[in-house]
Amino acid sequence: METEIITDIHPALVGSLSKAAAAETIINFGPGPTSLPKEVERKIAESFDKPGLTSLALSHRAPEFQEILDHTISTTRRVMEIPDNYEVLFTHGGGHGQFAALPLNLCHNQSDIATYVVNGTWSARGRDEAQKYCCVETIDGSDPDTGKLTTFPELVETDINPESKYIYLCSNETVNGIELHRLPKLPDSRRHIPLVVDASSDFTSKPIDWLGSGVGVLFACASKNIGHPGLTMAVIRKDLLGKDKASPLCPGVFNYTTNSEAGNLWNTPATFNIEVVGFLMDWLEREGGVSANESRSIAKAHALYDVIDNSLGFYGTPIENKSLRSRMNIPFNINGGDEELTNKFLIESWEQGIVGLRTLTPFGVGDYLRASLYNGVTQENVSVLVDFMVRFAEENSSGR
Amino acid sequence: METEIITDIHPALVGSLSKAAAAETIINFGPGPTSLPKEVERKIAESFDKPGLTSLALSHRAPEFQEILDHTISTTRRVMEIPDNYEVLFTHGGGHGQFAALPLNLCHNQSDIATYVVNGTWSARGRDEAQKYCCVETIDGSDPDTGKLTTFPELVETDINPESKYIYLCSNETVNGIELHRLPKLPDSRRHIPLVVDASSDFTSKPIDWLGSGVGVLFACASKNIGHPGLTMAVIRKDLLGKDKASPLCPGVFNYTTNSEAGNLWNTPATFNIEVVGFLMDWLEREGGVSANESRSIAKAHALYDVIDNSLGFYGTPIENKSLRSRMNIPFNINGGDEELTNKFLIESWEQGIVGLRTLTPFGVGDYLRASLYNGVTQENVSVLVDFMVRFAEENSSGR
Repeated sequence: METEIITDIHPALVGSLSKAAAAETIINFGPGPTSLPKEVERKIAESFDKPGLTSLALSHRAPEFQEILDHTISTTRRVMEIPDNYEVLFTHGGGHGQFAALPLNLCHNQSDIATYVVNGTWSARGRDEAQKYCCVETIDGSDPDTGKLTTFPELVETDINPESKYIYLCSNETVNGIELHRLPKLPDSRRHIPLVVDASSDFTSKPIDWLGSGVGVLFACASKNIGHPGLTMAVIRKDLLGKDKASPLCPGVFNYTTNSEAGNLWNTPATFNIEVVGFLMDWLEREGGVSANESRSIAKAHALYDVIDNSLGFYGTPIENKSLRSRMNIPFNINGGDEELTNKFLIESWEQGIVGLRTLTPFGVGDYLRASLYNGVTQENVSVLVDFMVRFAEENSSGR
Repeated sequence: METEIITDIHPALVGSLSKAAAAETIINFGPGPTSLPKEVERKIAESFDKPGLTSLALSHRAPEFQEILDHTISTTRRVMEIPDNYEVLFTHGGGHGQFAALPLNLCHNQSDIATYVVNGTWSARGRDEAQKYCCVETIDGSDPDTGKLTTFPELVETDINPESKYIYLCSNETVNGIELHRLPKLPDSRRHIPLVVDASSDFTSKPIDWLGSGVGVLFACASKNIGHPGLTMAVIRKDLLGKDKASPLCPGVFNYTTNSEAGNLWNTPATFNIEVVGFLMDWLEREGGVSANESRSIAKAHALYDVIDNSLGFYGTPIENKSLRSRMNIPFNINGGDEELTNKFLIESWEQGIVGLRTLTPFGVGDYLRASLYNGVTQENVSVLVDFMVRFAEENSSGR
């Protein structure tokens, strides 16, 4: 499909998020950055609509900001049930920053070994960056029969070098639509190895068994479920911190120990972004915490997968194993990837205010559209999409 | 002075930015993050007070964000008169991130040489970080007679290794109050070496002779003059870009070439922060551009230094050489650093709505308070402080 051509046809086809003329409200299914819950967006707007200084104008060393920081951290700890032996850090650099930060913090020497489970776009990207700083051993997560990235491998003893400084996985592959609904248990003989989790796109959508799963580091960029771009949360088990643990090549901004010792103020943190994460955590707490949020996630995802599975093949989704299907990002195609029908689908849904189903990324997801169901998307929003999909299938299946 | 004790006394003494009860408006002289121009703050508030998606909810790959990005870059280019052979990048990691990014981009090998002029807190911090990645040679910028950081050294041929990959300086030392009102010319025999400038705290306050000064890289964190924390602008001369120029150890998020080739979208940029920089650049353009802004800066700083210089020693400032006095950050003490009078000054000014004169930093500036005069501070704001200082001196000089 030629971008140059479709640009002239319809904004929906180039991933435009502008409000469709006919729609009263926009429902944003974008893969991130994307909309936050309405209550959080209102809270942000209110903070700009009152006298006095907003958090944009606060020095990070002002007591007022310290209060915001403390509040965000303590609410996150409660909501995500983070044990006391973990440190919560707010870092710069996004998920990609953490791709470098991890080996630089956990591998003191470039000869140290780290094991990467690669079963999608993001775990591959994390692995590629780590190769600059340590010896990476890869567990190939592609389907052994098809070679496609549609599954998650069993973690067996023989695949994991016992000397690994850590084992890395991405708990939700946004592009491929594969999610671990619970973190895997490592084989007994490998339980000494800290698990490192890229939870950028599923953080807050389900409980985390921090100690039971042996989580060493879990990180999440803010711009999917918990905030907006420019901030990344990293949760680190405290025994992994220490003066001489990191590589001497670790930039100060990425050094967990340095930033932990400075109470998140070694350099100027993204102050407003941190306040927004606090708003989101407040919202989660009011809405019943992480377990209630998981129930909502399951319900939203089921509604959409049901339409796909019951469409007699009109809609398709690549992940057959239902226990691995992402609740966060649901890839689907129309009539086996029919270009004309896909364009029609995009335009008609866009005219209903449904946006974000196609993002032009460098990753290439073929003919798949993608509905992302982060915290900003409600069950009612999903119902609008579901109703549209059912209607569209009815109207366009004839003759098949 | 014990923080533990003064906390109980008065919020002004712990750098609180809360609105003083008696004041109708807050005037924020904080060293950053700090207030933006009122028009820019209004523009931000307006963007949250309209239907549709704000930039917080925009995918970085949406055409709507591309428009914001293009607008911010093109306006910055016009306002700061950036020649075509420079690339404008928006990076993560703040100034500290750039402290690492510079040697990692400009020194392919750890044996490469870089020359650092160290005449204050921030150039020292930049140098310390660079020592991880290259061979640093330091030009000591302290006063040869007193050993204090109150001056800027003459850059002479014999002090600059001709093999240096770059020469680094900080054009405004916020803590020490030293500013280069124009970038220095390197000796003819060293003009082949790119100049690297940390302009975090003075960017937009004066014109930059990009080509004439041999600028290779100039960077500015957003949270002083151009925006809020979580974003750093880096302007790079294009001949310094190229596939194999950076160190193989350079994290992707810091790699100028990678990010330039990806049009600032290699990873998710801080979308909203970029929009705010655009608002600020629009404001600067409406207000007459960089030359008009420099005139305002000069006038604001003069008004304050005049009070200090005409106070018969009641107020003191550390930088005697007027051509090096910072227009951005003006350190001053009261009656030679009298603790009781300083506290009285802070409380009384705070009660007038004047805030941000003392930030509790780890850098230790002794008994000096600091008035920072970034773009968010108007001439009228300065007049309020000046009037207060004159009155305070009159009321408290008796008996000296």
